[in-house]
Formats: sequence, structure tokens, C-alpha cells
Amino acid sequence: MHGEVPVNWPAQRASRENSVIKESVIKDPGLAPEGQRKIDWAAQHCPVLNTIAKDQLADGSLRGRKVAVTVHLEAKTAYLAVLLHEAGADVTVTGSNPLSTQDAICAALVERGIRVFATHDPSEEDFERYIHMALETEPDLLLDDGAELVGRLIESHPDLLDKVEGATETTTTGILKVRAMTGEGVLPFPVLGINEARMKHLFDNRYGTGHSSIVSLLANTNLFLSGARVVVMGFGWVSRGLAKYAAGFGARVVVCEPDPVKLLEAHAEGYEVMNSLEAAEVGDFFLTGTGNVRVLRREHLERMKDGAILANAGHYDHEFDMAALREMSVAEREVRENITEYEMADGRRIHVIARGRLLNSGAGDGHPVEIMDLTFALHALGIHHLASHAKEIQPGIQPLPEALDQGVARIKLDTMGVKPEELTEEQIRYQQSWRSEQSTPE
Amino acid sequence: MHGEVPVNWPAQRASRENSVIKESVIKDPGLAPEGQRKIDWAAQHCPVLNTIAKDQLADGSLRGRKVAVTVHLEAKTAYLAVLLHEAGADVTVTGSNPLSTQDAICAALVERGIRVFATHDPSEEDFERYIHMALETEPDLLLDDGAELVGRLIESHPDLLDKVEGATETTTTGILKVRAMTGEGVLPFPVLGINEARMKHLFDNRYGTGHSSIVSLLANTNLFLSGARVVVMGFGWVSRGLAKYAAGFGARVVVCEPDPVKLLEAHAEGYEVMNSLEAAEVGDFFLTGTGNVRVLRREHLERMKDGAILANAGHYDHEFDMAALREMSVAEREVRENITEYEMADGRRIHVIARGRLLNSGAGDGHPVEIMDLTFALHALGIHHLASHAKEIQPGIQPLPEALDQGVARIKLDTMGVKPEELTEEQIRYQQSWRSEQSTPE
Amino acid sequence: MHGEVPVNWPAQRASRENSVIKESVIKDPGLAPEGQRKIDWAAQHCPVLNTIAKDQLADGSLRGRKVAVTVHLEAKTAYLAVLLHEAGADVTVTGSNPLSTQDAICAALVERGIRVFATHDPSEEDFERYIHMALETEPDLLLDDGAELVGRLIESHPDLLDKVEGATETTTTGILKVRAMTGEGVLPFPVLGINEARMKHLFDNRYGTGHSSIVSLLANTNLFLSGARVVVMGFGWVSRGLAKYAAGFGARVVVCEPDPVKLLEAHAEGYEVMNSLEAAEVGDFFLTGTGNVRVLRREHLERMKDGAILANAGHYDHEFDMAALREMSVAEREVRENITEYEMADGRRIHVIARGRLLNSGAGDGHPVEIMDLTFALHALGIHHLASHAKEIQPGIQPLPEALDQGVARIKLDTMGVKPEELTEEQIRYQQSWRSEQSTPE
Amino acid sequence: MHGEVPVNWPAQRASRENSVIKESVIKDPGLAPEGQRKIDWAAQHCPVLNTIAKDQLADGSLRGRKVAVTVHLEAKTAYLAVLLHEAGADVTVTGSNPLSTQDAICAALVERGIRVFATHDPSEEDFERYIHMALETEPDLLLDDGAELVGRLIESHPDLLDKVEGATETTTTGILKVRAMTGEGVLPFPVLGINEARMKHLFDNRYGTGHSSIVSLLANTNLFLSGARVVVMGFGWVSRGLAKYAAGFGARVVVCEPDPVKLLEAHAEGYEVMNSLEAAEVGDFFLTGTGNVRVLRREHLERMKDGAILANAGHYDHEFDMAALREMSVAEREVRENITEYEMADGRRIHVIARGRLLNSGAGDGHPVEIMDLTFALHALGIHHLASHAKEIQPGIQPLPEALDQGVARIKLDTMGVKPEELTEEQIRYQQSWRSEQSTPE
Repeated sequence: MHGEVPVNWPAQRASRENSVIKESVIKDPGLAPEGQRKIDWAAQHCPVLNTIAKDQLADGSLRGRKVAVTVHLEAKTAYLAVLLHEAGADVTVTGSNPLSTQDAICAALVERGIRVFATHDPSEEDFERYIHMALETEPDLLLDDGAELVGRLIESHPDLLDKVEGATETTTTGILKVRAMTGEGVLPFPVLGINEARMKHLFDNRYGTGHSSIVSLLANTNLFLSGARVVVMGFGWVSRGLAKYAAGFGARVVVCEPDPVKLLEAHAEGYEVMNSLEAAEVGDFFLTGTGNVRVLRREHLERMKDGAILANAGHYDHEFDMAALREMSVAEREVRENITEYEMADGRRIHVIARGRLLNSGAGDGHPVEIMDLTFALHALGIHHLASHAKEIQPGIQPLPEALDQGVARIKLDTMGVKPEELTEEQIRYQQSWRSEQSTPE
Repeated sequence: MHGEVPVNWPAQRASRENSVIKESVIKDPGLAPEGQRKIDWAAQHCPVLNTIAKDQLADGSLRGRKVAVTVHLEAKTAYLAVLLHEAGADVTVTGSNPLSTQDAICAALVERGIRVFATHDPSEEDFERYIHMALETEPDLLLDDGAELVGRLIESHPDLLDKVEGATETTTTGILKVRAMTGEGVLPFPVLGINEARMKHLFDNRYGTGHSSIVSLLANTNLFLSGARVVVMGFGWVSRGLAKYAAGFGARVVVCEPDPVKLLEAHAEGYEVMNSLEAAEVGDFFLTGTGNVRVLRREHLERMKDGAILANAGHYDHEFDMAALREMSVAEREVRENITEYEMADGRRIHVIARGRLLNSGAGDGHPVEIMDLTFALHALGIHHLASHAKEIQPGIQPLPEALDQGVARIKLDTMGVKPEELTEEQIRYQQSWRSEQSTPE
Repeated sequence: MHGEVPVNWPAQRASRENSVIKESVIKDPGLAPEGQRKIDWAAQHCPVLNTIAKDQLADGSLRGRKVAVTVHLEAKTAYLAVLLHEAGADVTVTGSNPLSTQDAICAALVERGIRVFATHDPSEEDFERYIHMALETEPDLLLDDGAELVGRLIESHPDLLDKVEGATETTTTGILKVRAMTGEGVLPFPVLGINEARMKHLFDNRYGTGHSSIVSLLANTNLFLSGARVVVMGFGWVSRGLAKYAAGFGARVVVCEPDPVKLLEAHAEGYEVMNSLEAAEVGDFFLTGTGNVRVLRREHLERMKDGAILANAGHYDHEFDMAALREMSVAEREVRENITEYEMADGRRIHVIARGRLLNSGAGDGHPVEIMDLTFALHALGIHHLASHAKEIQPGIQPLPEALDQGVARIKLDTMGVKPEELTEEQIRYQQSWRSEQSTPE
Repeated sequence: MHGEVPVNWPAQRASRENSVIKESVIKDPGLAPEGQRKIDWAAQHCPVLNTIAKDQLADGSLRGRKVAVTVHLEAKTAYLAVLLHEAGADVTVTGSNPLSTQDAICAALVERGIRVFATHDPSEEDFERYIHMALETEPDLLLDDGAELVGRLIESHPDLLDKVEGATETTTTGILKVRAMTGEGVLPFPVLGINEARMKHLFDNRYGTGHSSIVSLLANTNLFLSGARVVVMGFGWVSRGLAKYAAGFGARVVVCEPDPVKLLEAHAEGYEVMNSLEAAEVGDFFLTGTGNVRVLRREHLERMKDGAILANAGHYDHEFDMAALREMSVAEREVRENITEYEMADGRRIHVIARGRLLNSGAGDGHPVEIMDLTFALHALGIHHLASHAKEIQPGIQPLPEALDQGVARIKLDTMGVKPEELTEEQIRYQQSWRSEQSTPE
């Protein structure tokens, strides 16, 4: 049994009349000071969210609105919930992943008057129940991750559907699910796709993942990257970040990628490019960030050097063929915290960080605070926008308005004291005329 | 009078019956050996074009086809003409810019049996006439730059229009003009837009311009970039290349850009970002690559330090306000080849490279050979594709088929001995299913 | 009371006749498996030590020799002790620093048959006693850190002095102390100064400290370095490493340094250079590695921005004026593990990592394993050399023979499969003649 | 016959009474405006020399002193002569190398009233005679390059020896020769060794050579360095500069070096390290800067890829075995200005830039102006110091006083507006005490 769940909690779902749903379900309220301290650190490094809280959220449009939030329940995301709460919203929070929930953070949120249904590593049944409890607060607005809230709302709570005015969605996964729902005509409200915003994927996916993954790799292994050969699988946004920060620490980076154009971009950046079957023989470290499945397989594992280290920065933990690795190995042991060693029949040892799960959050603190400040600023502006304008927006997946995307960038620059160029009248005219007459070097 | 123009050449245009159009008009056939040597150097560093010549162009589909080509007439572009000629095409070449034509190159082309109408720095009238002479060869296919051929064809040679099957166009300028013509319904054949291909703008605009511009800047000034402050105007493809190579030589790069998202990307790359009015006060070098007009104006010139150096990598020579500079200055002199010094009333000296024209070609040899190998490979495949398939393609601007774009990348990798990843069956299925169900880290 | 110290252990010092000195004094033998696992990880990444163990140490010259070792008792140093033990030496280990001793490592060493006198965080009295216990084993050879063993030997155990044949010393501190002892004529044996070897300070001080310090900074703060302004105090080996790795992660590095030549080197590297009173106003992070005292003082603290973060990579914890910081602050609290926040009267918050102690070992796992492999290889070869040749060496501080320094480099290259150039006969002659006649570009 | 040499010029040497030695011997006085323009450009980028001219040289101590200068006679060195002249010295200039003398520069110097004996590409006899003519002006002070002046003075003008008070010497070659002379007891005055100054070799040899060599390589070849494999022979100051700037342009750098410690430094910098026989097979470009002889030999040439490009940044043109290359080739031709192609019997083509002579000055404008500003500032201060203090200095090779070396650095920082740290009283005490008691991280 996890947390302080009331005794008579119904097995399947709570009656909405049940006043008990007003109460939070968390592990240990006593952890609040520790959680608060962590949230404070995040808060101090979120200038964009802080500005938005003051300049946009405080306009009263969120006052009394019920917002249900499902997120990785750690300090940075918690701070977003706090700001919505301080803007007058009636906020309910639940976890988007059973393992990422931190009990101290939950306790701190509850202490500040936010409703939380989440515990670290709950049973599957409890995890499911928490989400339903969040929905049963009858939210007006949803801040969703992977369509966890929207999906269950449609399947299990059709009666609550009409009350919802809109949602924001952070992942591509969620966006695709919502698109399917729209196709089936079952979604009566708009969902703003945050991942498509430039201020999300250009920063979070590229710099955020690369930066935090390399730090995590080195903090966990205590090894030396300079001069080592780091094989990066893929050359999309995530892999570009991995390559960039690995090279920044003096690694000799090797890139493997199926798109020949991207592979040549990697070459022009000065990275070595080769097929992964060759790379398998020379790599000291192997980093995956492709979003695809089993990019490192038996044929790669067979060729790797003794001591090779595998780490994954892609969303799911299936970029290595862990089943093959286990099959091929004669022994498996933890050799350091977060590092599993697989001993092959031929004596070679292959090491896997965080069991192939996300390197930066599975064996570290996740993305840097300043990066999440940007991503959550997009969510905050999205929710704020929906609070006043949801009715004017078509149901289904919609882009975050470009003005809000640029707005986040402008606020960030403003907190840095930087003014971007302003185009002159002549330049604006030229750009317009250029569209029909002029060349551009880009 | 330029070149060996035949005595009775008609003033306005040649009659098509006039056999004289078979003869070339160039400056000095005696320069052929020098031109040939330069072309040979380029040829040696064009592995992609060489492969395409052997594997695609040699299939006979160009045999006897009349191709009119307008290009910057220097070694690299000349080699493209040579390969089309060797593939059996009946090639006519003219220059796309009065100043960029090199007479030695023209001589070498003629010696190899290619028809050329071009001289260095011709009168405007001659320049115009050369283009018409090229059209009067009644070409089947056009390799165009800035819609110079297509435009004049429509305006002045409607009778030849039907004979043309298709064209390739290298610039955005040309693409936009052609789009307008299509809108007016006057264009009866397809034009493949080369600039939109990834193998063009990702390499030519970014790496090619940045690389050659920084080399040109340093070769011309004999100055030291390490530790100097280089202000880069803009952060599009061209400006990214400028910033990248300047930083690679140890410069402290400052980026000025109106798009706040791009400005934050520059910041995350570690560049300093600021408004150009502040940057004007601290820069040692100012590089423009915005494609816009007058990005450095009187208000910037007033703030610059004594000795500031201005150079332009954008297509047109109007990124600095040269009129203002001249107005503000009390003296103007050449202080080194390609460097003009403007002395201000207050004693400050401002230096302009290549009078504000393209830094890399106005004061150097233009893009690196290997980069042009890629760009011209796209043209060669485009012309080859049109030779067999023009009839199947809708008139107007069309993208180069993705298979040809990727094909250039694959050939390049092949010449490097690199095999890109091949997706497994499982991965292909996963990617497809992923489109409906899975998340991606990108 | 710490560890399993025998009941009748004499308060001041043990009689040498007391057989009890054969027994180890550690905290908890049950921790051995955990300690062994950590040592195994280090062992796997120490190819140089492993080669030396096989090729040099195994020649029998250490068999039965008593070696006393004082080190930071963690996995990497423990492995050095293990190899000496496996070479047949009778090894006794004690800790060089009360806080760095890890009890699990001690347990693992004891389980392998090595004598250990050390516990984590002992009383001052116990710490002192452990060292004397190590000396009372009557060692032939000393592997010293800060002259802890040599100093106490001379002061308290003059009767044992003649038995000692030689020592290696890892720090400059120790070297200077030993030099003073030599001056006083009290040191009858040679001490090899390891820090002076190129394979030590070029790698350990520069790459090792910079690499591990930046990882530690980012792992502890969860902040984003790209685009941040990092002020590095000093531009010696340690500070160069800090600047290099910070810049590698996209930081804009500012260097402050009193030597004008070094400051210009920093400038030529592309770093911003300025006086620390100006730097104090712009820095986001402040890293010290000068080896001097109070390089960041009240006058700097007064100018720093809200949120500034201070971290030290220098040997001692006096590079910040912590007393001034405490005086100036109205509140002090732990805001994250290893991070103390000082709130100033004017509301600014200044953060200090690891209370100003060494960033990489005080808030991380210390230097990368591969770097310590090199440093300890020098020690191992030094001890091995002394075992056979101590009598032939003059007493006092002596350099490690150049052949051993180069030998470590050659072994490292060999484990990487790399063969350095071999000079031809002609080149050797030329170099010699060059010394009298020729110029060199260096 | 070169220049306007007076008719009755005595074949062997001029009588000192001969007034003719007052007159200059140059090629064409009409070139003065062109030369002046070039000198002006250099002058504008020599802030350190300009400051020294104002603050030190103007103190009158050089007034009327005869200074003989032998230098590469191009704009930057000419400016040094101009400043000495303007300080009141009676300056005579001759060339240090037959090919580097620029006639326009000579003309400009003469026009300003400086005596010049130099023409471009003179006969050996004339070259020799010019040097003697400079000596026959009976100089008080010598600014020497390769001991050209000092050597001939001792051998041929013993009667003038006593008049000379001192000299500065720029090269290691010269320093070694002077050392030999001192050993033989034939040198009665002090010679300040400029190359040993930190402000010389740390900047000129490292940054200056690397920067200008890579620019020259790319300007001459029009090739693309990003992704290309550049083999750098050696890892001393010059080679480090080559590697640094090549990597900055995106090259994949391979380092070959006999010293195993330096080779591991290259590895830790992220460069690939290997033996040159392996490197010979993979390199696209080969750059030498070792100061040794025949570092690329037949065995390397045999393994190189078709199209390999060789360029030398070392002082002498014997780092490639050009004799072997010529023997192995079946054809040799100029394929581009400054590029010679050697065709091997097996069809491979190997290209050599500037015939193996110094890449940056043989095929470009030499070191960047700002770097020479530093080197010549050391000379200027050296000559100025000797003018007043030569009598107090021991004969033979002497270091430039550390205060002057640091002085150049301080002036440079001052012109940049940068103030280096000032040590506090406490820090100075600590540093001193540290020498006997404390550790340092460096």
C-alpha cells in the first residue's frame, strides 16, 4: 500500500460526489521541506516562467479554473504547477511515469495547497487510479504528457468531456494519439502541440538532451572522454546534441545514420562517419538517440571491444537489443551504481547505463533547469491562451500560436538584457518585394 | 570591341539559319592551356560529378541534345559544361555575370569543342547579346542561373519556347521569377529548383560560403582573427557558416538577428548576442549574410571603432549602406588590394572588402571545389532527368526529385567509402507504426 | 570510537614488538564486496598499471619488501595498493585525508590481504595514530602524499629512519617539505618527485582536473552551461583545463590572471580577458584554480549578480574569502546537495559548491580513472625503481628518471595500439647538428 | 644588373671613406607609393609598436645611433625600421632572404630617408655585397636575423667590431651560431635572444604560423577542409598551431610525433594519433612543422592516396624528401599557382605547395600583422635597451630582460583596455611562503 490513501477508496473509480477526491494522495507529507528546497532551486533559474507568471498568468484569466496536470513529478515540473496555482487556478497534479515521481516534491506541492495524486513507484493499479482521480476533479483545462489524460477522459469519462475546454500536449506520441482521436471525431476540444514549437524542439531535444546526457554519462562512469571514441547512433536533433557535447569534451565522435544527407552533414562538421558494423569495432562509448528500435543489435554486440559502454538518450528503452545482450552473456552484475556489466562467453565485458533507459533522467536529474524553463513557458502560455480563447479554436491538434512561441524567445532575451534587431521599414518592404523578386543567401 | 566576334554579326539578334551561331565568341583562344589547367584541378576534386558522368550521363540520353548553360564562367562551372559535352550533348555556354567570366576558361572550353559566348567584363550590350546568341542555338534544355535564359526566352524568343523541354535553376531569385511566370501562364515547361535540394543549401550556403568567406577575409587582410571580435549580421544558413568558421579560428563571435528564436540558438551555441547598435561599438570585423538590405547603416557606421573592417557574404552588394559611408567620409583610398579605406571626418578609418560585393568570389576563388561538386551534381542529374522525363513533369517550378537529392549524397558517401545505415525490416515497420503510435526523441 | 580497534591498543603509539600491528583497523569488513566492485571498475580502466604489473612489478624485486602507502583511500588508489601487494610486497595502507577514506574500499583491501589503518572521518587522534601504525610496520619504501609519512618518520621514529630506502611523493607540497628536510640534512634517503613528471602534471593537473570539475559542476547544479558566462580565475595548468572544458560545453569563458603573457594566451585562445573586478559583475559561474589565496574577495562578492555560483578546483579551500561571504550574508542554507546559498543583505543570493573545497572530489568521484592510471603508473614505477636502485641515488628530492616518465607514455600508447615516430639515423644526426647549427620552428 | 648601384662600386668591399655608402641601392624608387600604402596598413595594426614608439623610443636614447637591420623586407618589418628611424636612429636596412625582399617596400623606406641595400631576387654576389654595405655604415647596434650581420662582422670586418655595442637576434639558428662564437671568445658585445622571450615563441611560432599557414593552404588550393583528414607532422609549438587551426576549420586532424608524451597530449586534445606510415595512407593533406629533416620520405610517398597535398610550415624546405619525390615521378607540372603536381608511375598524383618552402610566406603574406607587432616590439625594446645599457651586459647571448618581455604583454593588454589582476599583499606573501610550505594545483 502506498501513501495515505483513504481506507474506503473504491477499487475501480471514485464517485464524483465523494468529497475524498479533494484530498491528495501522496507518500509522506514530512518530506515537504526537502521538496520545497528543490523547487526553490528550480524557481530561481526559471526567469521566463517567472516573467510569464507576473505579466500574463496574473491577469485573472486562470482564477478558479480547474487545471489537471500530468507530468514527470520532479522539481522543475512542480514549479510549473505552483505558478498555475498562484495564478488562481485550482490545480490537480498526477505523475506521467511511475518511476519519475519524487515523493518529496509531491509533499511540497500539497503543502502549498495543490492537490496531488502520485507516489513514487506505485502499483500499476494505483498509478492508473491516480490519473482517474485527477480527471474526476472535473478539470476545465488539461496539461498532458503522452495523451494520458485526454485518452482516459474519452475512454472512461465521457460525461466529463464537455466540461473540458482545451489541453496542451508535450510529446509527439501524444500528438499522434490525439490526431487519431480527432480523425475518429471523438475529440470536442483543441489540443495545442507543444513539441512542434521551435522554442521546444530546437532547445529541449537538441541542447537539453545532449548536455544532460553527457554530464550523466561522465558522472556515472568516472571515465575520461577526451580522446575516446564515441559512436553516436543517428543525426537528428537529439543525436546532434550528443555529438556536439561529446566533441566539446574532446571525444572523437563517430556518427552512424541512414539518411545520406544527414550523414554528410555530420562529415562536414568534422565527425567521422561510418556504418555501424564498422563503428561497433572501434567505439569506446555508444550513444543512441534515434527514436527507432534496436539500432544496436546482436551483430553489433558481437563486434564490440571489451569494456564498451552503451547508453541511451532516446525516449524509449528499446534502442539496444537488451534481449540479445542477455542471451549472449554468461554473467550480469552491477559494477557501479547505474552500470550493469554483461560478461560475454568470450570474456568481453559490455556495460549498459541505466539499463538502457533515458541516460539523463534515468541516471541523473534530467534536462537542465533553464531548458525546462523554456518548455514549460510554452505550456504555461498555452494553458493561459486556452483559458480565454479555447472556444475560438478548432477542435483537434493545433499549433501553439507563433506569437506565443516567439513570445517565449522574446521574454528569454529580455531577461538576458538583449534586444533583437528591429527591421527597418525599408527592410520589411524589401523582404516582401524579395519574396517576389530578390535572391537570398539562405 | 571584345573577342573575335565575326564581322557581320547582326546587331539585334542572329537569324537562326545563320550558321555563324555555331562559332564561339571569346576573348583569346591562346589562353586555353591556362584555362585547361584550372579545369583539371577542379576535375580532380569533383568525385561526385565524375561518378555521375560515368554512371548516369553516359547512358546516351543526352546525346545530341542541345543544352544552353548560363553560369559564373570559372573552372568549377566549366567542368560541368565539359561533362555534359562529353555525354554527347551539344553545349552552349554563356556567362551569368559580366565580371565573373574568366577568359582562359572560355578558351579552354572552346578548345574542347564547346560553344561559348562570353568575355570578361563585356559592354552591357555585348553581355546581353551573348545570352541571346545562346538562346538562338535553339536549346532543348536550359541550365539557368537567375532565370537569365528562361526570362529572355519568354520575352524575346516566343518562337523557340516550344522547343525547350525543361530547365534547372540554381538560385532563389530565379525560382521566384519562374514562379511568377508560371502564375501568368506563360511557361510551358518544368523548371527544377536546385536551391531547395538539401544537398544544395545545407552545404553550399552554409559550409561553402562560410569556409571560403573567412579564408578570403584573412588572405586579403593579413590580419589575426583569434581573439578578435567578429560581428555576424543574421543567423540563417549563410551567417551560421560565417559564425562557425570565424569561431573555429578563435574569434569571439557576436550575432545580431531579428528572429528571437534564431538569436537564442546563437546564444546556446556560445556566441555573444546583442543588438547591432551595441555590436557596432565593439566589433573588429563585421560580416553580413542576411539577404536583406542596408543591415549596416549610418547609425552603425557612426558608432564603429577606428579600423573596423566590413565584408559581405550575402548575394547582393547592398547589405552595407555604401552611400552613407561615402557621404560620411572625407577621403577614400585603396589601402591594399581589394580593401578600400574610408576616412571619417572624426579621423576614424573604416575598411570595406571587395567594395561590399561577395567576399568569397569578389576577393577570392569562390566556394571550395568539393562543395560545387555537390551543387553541380544536382544540376547534372536534373538536366539528365529532364532529358528523358521532362514530358511527364508539370510545367512550372518543381522540386528536384528527392531520389536525385539523396542520390548525390549516396554517391558522395560512396566515393568516400562510407556506407550509411540500412534500416532493418523491423525498423521500417516501427517507423511506420511510430507515425501513428510512438514518440520520438526528435 | 571508530572501527574494530583492538581493546588494548596503547594510547600514544604501539610498541613495535606488539604483534597487534599486523592486524588492520577498519570500519566494517562486511563492506568488502561493494569495495571490491568499485576497485574492479577502476582496474578495468587502468591499462597502464595493468601492463606495468605484468611487465615490471612481477620481476620479483618487490617480493617481501615492506611498502607503506598513504593515499586518498578510494577505488583508484586502492588498485595501486592491490598491484603492489600482488607483486609480492608487504603493503600497509593509511589515508591521506580524513574525509576521503571510503570504508568499503578499506574492507576490500583487507579482504585481499592488505594491511589497512583507516576509517572514514576518524577523530584527529585516530587519524594521527593510523599513520604512526603504518610507520611502525617498519617499511622499506614509502609512497607518500604531502610528506605525511616522511615527516612523521623523521620527527617521531628516528630509529626507523635507516631502514627506509626511498619514497615517492605525489604533491608539490610534499616536495617542498622534503626539500626543506634535505636542507637541514635530516633525510638519509631519496624521494622521487612525481608531480614534476610530464605524464603527471600535463595530464592530471590539466585534463584531469578540468574534465572532472566541469562534470561535477553540472551534475551538482543541474544547470545549463551553453551561453553562460564562466569566469575562470588563473590561467595555469588547472585553470586552462577548466576553461577548455567549460568552453567545450558552450560557455563563454572569461579569464582573469595576473601574468600578462598568460592573459594574452587566453585572449588568443578566444577567451574574453578582463580584470576580476569587471568579471565579478558579469559572471554566472566563478571557477578558481590558482593555488593562491582569496582570489575572490569581498570586493568581488559585492559586485556579483544574484544567483552567482562559486566553485573551486584548486587544492586548498581558501581561494574564496569564505569569512567575508559569511560576514556579508544574512542567511545561509543548503539549497541542494553540496550547494550552500548565502543570502546577502541586499537580497542577492550567492551559491558555493562543496563549501569551497575541491569541486571534483568534494562533490564528485575525483579525477577520471584513466588519468589516475597514468599518475599511479609513475608511482608504481618509482617504487619499483627504488626497490632495486635506491642505494645508487643521492638522498633528497630527485626527479623520476626521464626514461620512466617516457616509459609510462610508451606503455599507454602501446595499449592504444599506437606507435610513435622513430627518428631516422639522419634525423638524429640532424638534431644533434641542429643543436649547433640549425634553426627550428619551435 | 640590379637596381641603381653606383658605377664604380668596388667589387670586394667599400672603403668606409667612400661617401657612396650613404646612398641606397634599390630597384625602383617609383614604387614608393605602393610600398608606403602597404606599410601604412601594417602600421595601423601595430598598436604595441606604436605605443613603444611614443613612450620608449622617443626618449632620445636612439638619437644619432647607427642601427643596421637585416630582415625579411616586407611591410611589417619595414615598419619597425621606420619607427627606429623616427626615433632619431640612423637606420640601414638590408634583406635577410633574397626572395622575400619586396622592391616597393624598399622604395618607400628610401623615400622616408632610410638607407636600404636590397633588391628582390639579387645575384648571390649582390646579396652578399648588400650585407657588407650595411656593415660598412659602421653601426652601433645590430638587429639581426640568423646572425647574418654578426657573423660577417666577425669574419670580414674585425676593425668595426669594437664600435658595435650590442645586437638583437630573432632566430634560434642565429642564437646557436652566436653561442658558438661566444665559446670561441670572438664576440665582444651582448646579443639579446628574442626567440626565447615568451611573447615571441608562444605567439609567433604557435598562433602566427598556424593561422597564416592554414589560410594560405586554403587560399591556394580552393579546397574544403571540413571533414578532410589533415596529417600534422610533429607536435611542438608550430605543429600545435597547425593542428589547432585545421581542427577549427572542421578537419579531422592526425598527429605523428616521436615524443610519446607529446603524442598523448595530442590524443587528449581529441586528435587522432598514429605512426606516419599509417597516416600516409589516410591523409588528404600533410603539413610539416617539425624543424627536422625528411620527415616525409619515400616510404610515405609510396603509401599516399592519389591527390595528396603536401605543405610545409617549418623553417627550412627539407621536411619533405623532394629528391625522392622527383625520382619517383614520371611527370611534374604546375597545376595552379604555387602548386606543383608530381605524377607517379602508378598514376597517383601528389601535390606540393610552394615547392616545400614555408607555406605562409612562400605562398602568402606571412604571419598576421598583429603577431609581428609583438615580435618586433621585443626587438624595438631590445635595441632601445642596448642603446643605454649595452655596456652593463655581459658579452654573448643574453635573454631579453623579463621586464621587457612582460612589458610588451602589458602594453598589448593596455591597447586592448584590459587590466591584468594585481596580486594583493597577502597573495604575494602567500606565494612566497607557498614556495616553502604550500601546494599548488599547477
